[in-house]
Amino acid sequence: MVSQNDVDEILNRSRNAFLIFKNVPGKKRAELLRAIAAGIEGSAAKLLPVAMRETNLPEPRLAGEVARTCNQLRQFADMLVEGSWVEARIDTALPDRQPVPKPDIRKMMVPLGPVVVFGASNFPFAYSTAGVDTASALAAGCTVVLKGHPAHPETSNAVADVFSAALAQLGLPSDTFLHIQSPGFDVGRMLVQHPHTKAVGFTGSFSGGKALYDYAQQRKEPIPVFSEMGSINPVYLLPGALKSRSEQIAGQYAASVTLSVGQFCTNPGLLIAIKSQELDLFSAQLATAIGKTASAPMLHKGIAENYSKKRTEALSQKGVTLLGQGNGDADAGHGIPTLATVGGKDFLENPLLLDEVFGPYSLLVQAANQDELEMIAGSVAGQLTTSIIAEQSDWGQFGSLLQTVSEKAGRVIINGVPTGVEVCPSMHHGGPFPATTDARFSSVGIDAVKRFVRPLSFQNFPEQLLPEELKTDNPLGIWRLFNNQWKR
Amino acid sequence: MVSQNDVDEILNRSRNAFLIFKNVPGKKRAELLRAIAAGIEGSAAKLLPVAMRETNLPEPRLAGEVARTCNQLRQFADMLVEGSWVEARIDTALPDRQPVPKPDIRKMMVPLGPVVVFGASNFPFAYSTAGVDTASALAAGCTVVLKGHPAHPETSNAVADVFSAALAQLGLPSDTFLHIQSPGFDVGRMLVQHPHTKAVGFTGSFSGGKALYDYAQQRKEPIPVFSEMGSINPVYLLPGALKSRSEQIAGQYAASVTLSVGQFCTNPGLLIAIKSQELDLFSAQLATAIGKTASAPMLHKGIAENYSKKRTEALSQKGVTLLGQGNGDADAGHGIPTLATVGGKDFLENPLLLDEVFGPYSLLVQAANQDELEMIAGSVAGQLTTSIIAEQSDWGQFGSLLQTVSEKAGRVIINGVPTGVEVCPSMHHGGPFPATTDARFSSVGIDAVKRFVRPLSFQNFPEQLLPEELKTDNPLGIWRLFNNQWKR
Repeated sequence: MVSQNDVDEILNRSRNAFLIFKNVPGKKRAELLRAIAAGIEGSAAKLLPVAMRETNLPEPRLAGEVARTCNQLRQFADMLVEGSWVEARIDTALPDRQPVPKPDIRKMMVPLGPVVVFGASNFPFAYSTAGVDTASALAAGCTVVLKGHPAHPETSNAVADVFSAALAQLGLPSDTFLHIQSPGFDVGRMLVQHPHTKAVGFTGSFSGGKALYDYAQQRKEPIPVFSEMGSINPVYLLPGALKSRSEQIAGQYAASVTLSVGQFCTNPGLLIAIKSQELDLFSAQLATAIGKTASAPMLHKGIAENYSKKRTEALSQKGVTLLGQGNGDADAGHGIPTLATVGGKDFLENPLLLDEVFGPYSLLVQAANQDELEMIAGSVAGQLTTSIIAEQSDWGQFGSLLQTVSEKAGRVIINGVPTGVEVCPSMHHGGPFPATTDARFSSVGIDAVKRFVRPLSFQNFPEQLLPEELKTDNPLGIWRLFNNQWKR
Repeated sequence: MVSQNDVDEILNRSRNAFLIFKNVPGKKRAELLRAIAAGIEGSAAKLLPVAMRETNLPEPRLAGEVARTCNQLRQFADMLVEGSWVEARIDTALPDRQPVPKPDIRKMMVPLGPVVVFGASNFPFAYSTAGVDTASALAAGCTVVLKGHPAHPETSNAVADVFSAALAQLGLPSDTFLHIQSPGFDVGRMLVQHPHTKAVGFTGSFSGGKALYDYAQQRKEPIPVFSEMGSINPVYLLPGALKSRSEQIAGQYAASVTLSVGQFCTNPGLLIAIKSQELDLFSAQLATAIGKTASAPMLHKGIAENYSKKRTEALSQKGVTLLGQGNGDADAGHGIPTLATVGGKDFLENPLLLDEVFGPYSLLVQAANQDELEMIAGSVAGQLTTSIIAEQSDWGQFGSLLQTVSEKAGRVIINGVPTGVEVCPSMHHGGPFPATTDARFSSVGIDAVKRFVRPLSFQNFPEQLLPEELKTDNPLGIWRLFNNQWKR
């Protein structure tokens, strides 16, 4: 059990390490991220069996996740070596300007301070100990206190060992990355409310993410909390597409719902279409596709029990009927792939149907007509993603739907499914509340670094006191806005 | 008195206007900002006498502020015409990639929605009705609901008329900018807590700014609040500088403290130096310079009364003594220029001495030695600015001071005073809490637009559905990160 004294000591250590680490050049931080990536790859043979045992995820899925994690670390390393991410702006002095001289002012991003990161249950590598929150915070020049997810403690410990080795190898302060494990609920509050903590990263449930956010707002000094929380990732299926490729869509959608036993934050939990004969055919095809799917054990007992409970509750709502289900043994912790349906009117009257059922569950909402479909689109809260499956011919009629969903999602997908989050600069993994607590920031891609920095202006600094990024002759060769011109 | 029904109607109108305005191209929004600037310049002969009467500020000061306001509007217009501010990132598809194809993803910034802006008392133009919050929100594509500051209602009305004319002239929705006035305290809460409100801009007191922030966090859907609040803008005067140019510094500092009767958020309220014979000389020079300053009426009666009360309270603290004061008639609403002093030990023991005294008041803290000076630097909370007056020879000894203050300020100034906020891209006007509620954003300069946007990813969009900024052939000619290369 971690006490308040323990938390004080941990954050003091992290703060002291920050005073050193914040001045470590970007290229050296890049070396650290590469050393961590190499260390994880080097330990993969040891890590994978541990993670398989702790998460029930199959080896190919975890091996893919390890590759993704190392790829993420290296993308941040590349970003640091390139260097332009600091958003340098330079305006040189005009000492003779009237009525007052213009001073020399330069600006760049600097790190916030110690960041507390909470590991996620469903990604033991990519969103946990060495995941994107940690990678982006270290890239920013922040130190990290990582609270391991209690569902995979041994994996988390083994990854933390990689950090220790990498920091030692590069002669960086060992407290740059601190790893703690504690089953207690209070430790989260203590970590978030410690005065040395300057930002928080979290991936998980709405209740957990919102609680951390509220703790942070109750501090004397509020701090940013980046909670990536639940999402039902609506998919709108338009009439033209339904007519032309119903069976293909059913197969693609069923695969997306059931991928990794539905344990993705981008899992499509809601499918909306307008009632028609074609929809009847499609729903039968989708029910069949889902019915053919075999299940597997979910991440851990708690998640499986929660899925079973939420699924039962969802299926018992007014107007909801079961259309199809796959095979599996709920008592053995399997998540049974499930397709349910409901009419648009019943859906609009029951906000509970907007709740996420974390697992391989999806609800097909059959709208009476286009008006009802647009009302449904208007009733949905903020989402990580929203997809529209459409033919060219659909856009004339459904242009306003695209407008509506664009306001409510962080990523809009046309003719695709939401699962599969590409790690690249154009990926925004975030979205309006309640998908996240801050729609303005992404937890995937190099822009995730922006969560952990703030701008600092340097006015009238002698050259030798300026950071390399802002020296006049641009020794790092980065892109800068120099007297209103982009230059490097 | 504005009721909840009125607020509902206002935000509904703003929301409906947003549905149109968000799709207005950047170049057209630039025309709007230019038309507003031209309208303000065209009305200046009418606006200035009204503002002079309402704020007690002299004509040259207000004429300068009008010029600054129009300059700001035009800087945002230039930014929109140039277009790269949307941070476009494009990653094209790799359909043959193994093991899974890479989809086409593109990302850019989109507006948040209706923004509520609260006018400031001390800048009837530059931080009020047509100020930087309004300008940056409109630049972002957001609509604005402006609550005029009750201290200058006629000025605010006259500026609002300029918006109406500019919107009509360009055929844009009249509700793009809505102006309300209400003396009530409740209306602020209702505006911030209305579900259609998506962000808030405020410049003013800590109590006001923090209350709005808390209202926003109590919403079902929390929203960003950019409150720029109080700051005492510490100035550290190092021994070398004190030795070499004591009198020049005294004159410069006295001018900064008393400029515009001290009614700037960047007013230097705290001067810290190490006890010495040179400091005795300097403090006498500074007391003389302040004593020579004539006062003038403050913005309004409430501010003058508050200054008088806070000044009396500050002067009555343990160990605080009056060093010098200028001339003026407090009963006539003048703010009496005041220099007080206190020893480092008394200062460290009394947190009340860190409170802002809004007006021409400054406290010289005499530290016993370097250790005490560094302890004082460590005890200070977040600030808009921190200045260090130093000779080259001081840096060897005081490098760690620069490290400390850099963590606590949004702008660090060497050998200058904090007043005079240049409007340019490198200016960060913001800072760690309690200077603002969000250290990551500036309320001056074109980067202020970042407060009112969020990223949106477009995955697998057909060309004709993409915004101009993201079309493959780059019709706007903007800078974009295209497959990891900066191009335009």
